[in-house]
Amino acid sequence: MNIKTVGIIGDSAEKPELNSIAEKMGILIAKAGYTLITGGRDGVMGAASRGARSVDPRPETARVIGIMPGTDEKGSNPYLDYIIPTGVGWARNQIVVLSSDIIVAIGGGAGTLSEISYSWVYNKPILAFTGVEGWSNNLAGKVIDYKRTDPLIKVTTPEEAIKKIKEIFSDQ
Amino acid sequence: MNIKTVGIIGDSAEKPELNSIAEKMGILIAKAGYTLITGGRDGVMGAASRGARSVDPRPETARVIGIMPGTDEKGSNPYLDYIIPTGVGWARNQIVVLSSDIIVAIGGGAGTLSEISYSWVYNKPILAFTGVEGWSNNLAGKVIDYKRTDPLIKVTTPEEAIKKIKEIFSDQ
Amino acid sequence: MNIKTVGIIGDSAEKPELNSIAEKMGILIAKAGYTLITGGRDGVMGAASRGARSVDPRPETARVIGIMPGTDEKGSNPYLDYIIPTGVGWARNQIVVLSSDIIVAIGGGAGTLSEISYSWVYNKPILAFTGVEGWSNNLAGKVIDYKRTDPLIKVTTPEEAIKKIKEIFSDQ
Amino acid sequence: MNIKTVGIIGDSAEKPELNSIAEKMGILIAKAGYTLITGGRDGVMGAASRGARSVDPRPETARVIGIMPGTDEKGSNPYLDYIIPTGVGWARNQIVVLSSDIIVAIGGGAGTLSEISYSWVYNKPILAFTGVEGWSNNLAGKVIDYKRTDPLIKVTTPEEAIKKIKEIFSDQ
Repeated sequence: MNIKTVGIIGDSAEKPELNSIAEKMGILIAKAGYTLITGGRDGVMGAASRGARSVDPRPETARVIGIMPGTDEKGSNPYLDYIIPTGVGWARNQIVVLSSDIIVAIGGGAGTLSEISYSWVYNKPILAFTGVEGWSNNLAGKVIDYKRTDPLIKVTTPEEAIKKIKEIFSDQ
Repeated sequence: MNIKTVGIIGDSAEKPELNSIAEKMGILIAKAGYTLITGGRDGVMGAASRGARSVDPRPETARVIGIMPGTDEKGSNPYLDYIIPTGVGWARNQIVVLSSDIIVAIGGGAGTLSEISYSWVYNKPILAFTGVEGWSNNLAGKVIDYKRTDPLIKVTTPEEAIKKIKEIFSDQ
Repeated sequence: MNIKTVGIIGDSAEKPELNSIAEKMGILIAKAGYTLITGGRDGVMGAASRGARSVDPRPETARVIGIMPGTDEKGSNPYLDYIIPTGVGWARNQIVVLSSDIIVAIGGGAGTLSEISYSWVYNKPILAFTGVEGWSNNLAGKVIDYKRTDPLIKVTTPEEAIKKIKEIFSDQ
Repeated sequence: MNIKTVGIIGDSAEKPELNSIAEKMGILIAKAGYTLITGGRDGVMGAASRGARSVDPRPETARVIGIMPGTDEKGSNPYLDYIIPTGVGWARNQIVVLSSDIIVAIGGGAGTLSEISYSWVYNKPILAFTGVEGWSNNLAGKVIDYKRTDPLIKVTTPEEAIKKIKEIFSDQ
């Protein structure tokens, strides 16, 4: 039985409002015993990782994995338990998505948009934060194309998000 | 001096309205002596390739290259001069974009959306067809995020698109 | 501070002699508190993973990560804590190597040979088992090309290998 | 019907003996109307590309395609008709191989060795030059592992190589 994973996607720039949500999500994910997957960089990725690492005691199954675009740890945030350098550039976005059982989008620009797209084509459940600037807000509650009928799940608070995540895992 | 390339991105499903635009674009691109890049499959990709191949006489620099997700030619349309099987799944979308000097989006679902996102992060000029169903229409005239200030270039007819393409190439 | 990782590479076919070495290596790696990285499949990869998982109590830093060629867990062995599906086929061999601080080759065919090649170009320390059938034996003690002067480190027993691994980590 | 492609793999360093073979191979491949695939860089790749481009008149089907590790044309040799930047680093070696109907190895270090390995696992016919320094010589006439029974085809001159290539294409 593999450890359950939740991927958090969002911008690498530092935006306090988004980082605050991300950090709280990281805490809740770790407390629930899920492992956090991100693209390993700063901004939303760093804040979520920092949150997860701050949980004490942290469940054994609540690690932090950063899947990096480069060939080494360069550009990684300092809160990763595991660094997976892929060396495939932005194509690593596919691997972030495939490594996550559930995806949570918090704001985000073009990079995040490519990850939402991948999440869609690879049939991952996608939670999207509203009330924030970025693509998670634009797409929350919507479908990306006709190939799936389940819209991106709109969430407005970390507490609501973690509740949805637990429901999805318990349904599987 | 390398041959100039134009990438056409869009859905692999057969939608007559989109295919008709794609086929016309393929013809105009080939007539102008540009090589066509696509994801090598059917729908918009196949129609554009068919258009390019139909030009007679076809300029020597007007080839048709399909960059495939799989490890062989399976699933490719029959109009490709060159098949580049990548074996990297949807991550091939990054390579479609990087191989193209200019990107033209015609409709499109989640796969196309990931390609538009990659085009944005890799700083490619992007033309987006309006008046059709799909992501090219949703994003035409808009910016994806704050990292670029040039919106996706809105086009409504193949003739307008090829004119823009020629302008972009002559500016470079 | 990231958790130290050791990658074990070798054939996915079941060869008792190689599996026995791999399983022992997995045990020693886990006991030493290192996380095991493999390509996630059977044979040498499965045996090493089984070994690592069998350690009880297992140090918190001794997880088992399988980096898979496909887009899901299909074909994975049942001893993985984390599955990283890459969707990039054999190109995942690059990611197995990049995710590992040190590489240990046990026998191996063409897939393993590509991983040894990647380990070389990405400057990873490489331990190679002798006295077994396969590429680790052919290349132990040799250099692959002129770009590095340090030959593949020849090892004959798991005990000798873990000793070398500890030395390498303590030198860093 | 797609254009037939031959991939030439070898070192990016400039070694006169290897480059001379590569250039001659490029000429013969272009004269035969096959398109040349390489990793797009210098050394053997550059020499083969230069040879192919020098053929005058050059058959329409004899283009030169360079499949690059980076995200743009940086590091490419000046003899490419088409540049396919993959952005996936050394993982582009998989794509060089998959894009080629037949592989010709001329010398080569670790990078070339990874390409020979990929050629083997992807069931490509492989010609290997003997009488030169590097991995093509080490492996000519040998099998890489038990999964195929056809050894790497030993060749000693470009003339012999092109004869074999024509035979392989006519058998298909």
